[in-house]
Amino acid sequence: MFKVSWFPELLPEEKLIEEKIINIIKKNYQQIWYTPIETPAVERNSVLTAKWGDEVSKQIFWLYGLAQWCEDKKDYSLHFDLTVPFARFIIDHKNELTFPFKRSQIQKVRRWERAQKWRFREFYQADIDVIWESEKNFEFYDAEIVFTINKTLQNIFSELKINETFTIKLNNKKIISWFLKWINLDEKILEITSIIDKKDKISQEEFINLLKKERLTPNQINQITDFTKATIDKITPLNEEMGKWINELQNLLNNLQNLWVSNIQVDFWIVRWLDYYTGMVFETFIDNNRKLGSIASGWKYENFTKFIDNKFSFSGVWGSIWISRLESFIFEKLELNKKTTTEYLIINFPETKKESLNLLISLLNQGKQVEYYPNNDKLKKQFKYADKKWIKYCIILGENELKEWYYLQKNMITWEQEKIYLK
Amino acid sequence: MFKVSWFPELLPEEKLIEEKIINIIKKNYQQIWYTPIETPAVERNSVLTAKWGDEVSKQIFWLYGLAQWCEDKKDYSLHFDLTVPFARFIIDHKNELTFPFKRSQIQKVRRWERAQKWRFREFYQADIDVIWESEKNFEFYDAEIVFTINKTLQNIFSELKINETFTIKLNNKKIISWFLKWINLDEKILEITSIIDKKDKISQEEFINLLKKERLTPNQINQITDFTKATIDKITPLNEEMGKWINELQNLLNNLQNLWVSNIQVDFWIVRWLDYYTGMVFETFIDNNRKLGSIASGWKYENFTKFIDNKFSFSGVWGSIWISRLESFIFEKLELNKKTTTEYLIINFPETKKESLNLLISLLNQGKQVEYYPNNDKLKKQFKYADKKWIKYCIILGENELKEWYYLQKNMITWEQEKIYLK
Repeated sequence: MFKVSWFPELLPEEKLIEEKIINIIKKNYQQIWYTPIETPAVERNSVLTAKWGDEVSKQIFWLYGLAQWCEDKKDYSLHFDLTVPFARFIIDHKNELTFPFKRSQIQKVRRWERAQKWRFREFYQADIDVIWESEKNFEFYDAEIVFTINKTLQNIFSELKINETFTIKLNNKKIISWFLKWINLDEKILEITSIIDKKDKISQEEFINLLKKERLTPNQINQITDFTKATIDKITPLNEEMGKWINELQNLLNNLQNLWVSNIQVDFWIVRWLDYYTGMVFETFIDNNRKLGSIASGWKYENFTKFIDNKFSFSGVWGSIWISRLESFIFEKLELNKKTTTEYLIINFPETKKESLNLLISLLNQGKQVEYYPNNDKLKKQFKYADKKWIKYCIILGENELKEWYYLQKNMITWEQEKIYLK
Repeated sequence: MFKVSWFPELLPEEKLIEEKIINIIKKNYQQIWYTPIETPAVERNSVLTAKWGDEVSKQIFWLYGLAQWCEDKKDYSLHFDLTVPFARFIIDHKNELTFPFKRSQIQKVRRWERAQKWRFREFYQADIDVIWESEKNFEFYDAEIVFTINKTLQNIFSELKINETFTIKLNNKKIISWFLKWINLDEKILEITSIIDKKDKISQEEFINLLKKERLTPNQINQITDFTKATIDKITPLNEEMGKWINELQNLLNNLQNLWVSNIQVDFWIVRWLDYYTGMVFETFIDNNRKLGSIASGWKYENFTKFIDNKFSFSGVWGSIWISRLESFIFEKLELNKKTTTEYLIINFPETKKESLNLLISLLNQGKQVEYYPNNDKLKKQFKYADKKWIKYCIILGENELKEWYYLQKNMITWEQEKIYLK
């Protein structure tokens, strides 16, 4: 292989499925007005690393040539996600956009990571965001983002005839933050949620031992154990702030119910990279394949653009379908073959070339997928080519057929022939 | 602006047009079986520079991070066209493909160039190719490529209602090569064709002076002057090879005639970067805007993949639409506004939220583009938002309407209201 490793490349039959998936996503996103944008593959390092610095600089591909070329000796790199470029887009174009601004963006991103299964160095993201000036709030958009992602995924599964269900796990980060603040553990949020994550796989005793290792007091451990049993219907807020955010989550659930989204599950322990987002958060899992990881994520964030330019502050809510991961799963399910990609082949007869090419044009104009066999080869060879390419129908328009003004449409599986009269 | 210069970025209303253009291209390419592929943005430098070495290394963006990271210290860069990655794709996947193999590839490429008008550092290409093992030949595909590019461009212009015509200038490079060989000038092909290119803008005397400056003999100058008057109908081949290639060009014209392609003009002096291609060549110009440059190009090439791996040799024919250039022209023609991007806004009334969201779902299921106003703002403010976003219709489903089981559809230009009954 001359290809660069860990930059995946699809075969044509897989790429056709990917295009189908992307088209379904585009249609669903744009129907509810997430207008498409596309940003360059390249951004300034000062933008890319503004918020997370070192954490991110390990992940970006630096562009060597460009930095040399530019007179100001600034450095540039490839984007590692679509959120930072979008924040930059908002700042650059704020006077040309109407807020709340709803965008969709489907592009590849590149990350300089140790590669492993389901983790590539180049992959597709399909993002939607709503963005508004920070002093305002738009709670409904939390629901709209979840609704749109859910609808899109259901469309992908049904159109590709993938018989699988999925569940959206939903939380509001502020609930767990305020809970842990209440018991003086907000500094240990990552350690504690990672222990909670193991809870269902280990015994109660092991679970408590893990918490003890983090030097939690018996009271803290009790509080956490109680909280793991909480559900959204039966939760007692420990303070006013917690109550407020439980309320926000409850509102979101009501909105989702009105939008007929039912494959939802509240999970108070769902958290992500923590300084990024500030409210609602969701992850989506295929019910029979949790190992695959999340196929769609999203969250709410405040003061989103400040890290680029302190003068401007926008807030918003984001959702994204992890296309590359989802499609690896779909490719395994579909047992791809080439049968479905091609339709008609017009057999080459030099005596009727003119009429055959006219027929080609007329079938194309009817929206059919069709090609003309390029050479005057023996019939046997032409049919063999059709077989190799899994072509469904061969079209025969030789001298005999032309005399009576019809052509034969030969089914390449059953070998049945249909007579079709020319107009 | 925090954006990197010379990497263009479209506003949403422009990006919507670009998506339309790309969809038309995809539909036309795939209908005649140019199956889609997509290659990574990154290739090995050994692949990218294999054929042209220094010439190309000035144009590529080197990836610094990746080179450091990889254990074998190999260097990588961003692709500067789609042809070299496709050659690499063919070599890597030759056992998984059926030949002749027809591919389409629509992706951005990046070139480290001095930027100027119509020349960007990142731009879209929309390529089609047919590839076959080198010992064979498929003359018909020359015509199929020109036909497909022509049909696609006509579709773009008609669907976007751009009232412009274009002409495809066609040649076979071997004709001019053999002509210049015959008069011992094949080493000066670039100099001479660039003088010919000026011919229509200067006097006959100036033209001859320019040729004299290149130290051409009077006889050579006479031969060239004669040849500039040649047409495909009235050309006398000076040697057997020239005759052979005039014949090939004549065949291509016949095939194109059978395919109803009429906006064709033979131009014996159309040439391009010379060691790249070996036969048919075309460039496409908008009749009323020659300054824009070619909007679609193509050519035939032999022994296409040898530069990557000497063991394998494929030949083929290529065509490409220069989307980024074409769309700059289209944006100027269209006088873009936001009027056409949005359709329905459902007005927010808290008392009928449930029914309004049901209506949202039902309109989405009908394929309409529709959104729900997110907040319970005053009616005036909601209508103002609709105006700012150039929304065509507002949908009013308040308590009064709900009682009688209808909603009002308000035209935002005429302010007329239509009563529509709920099902």
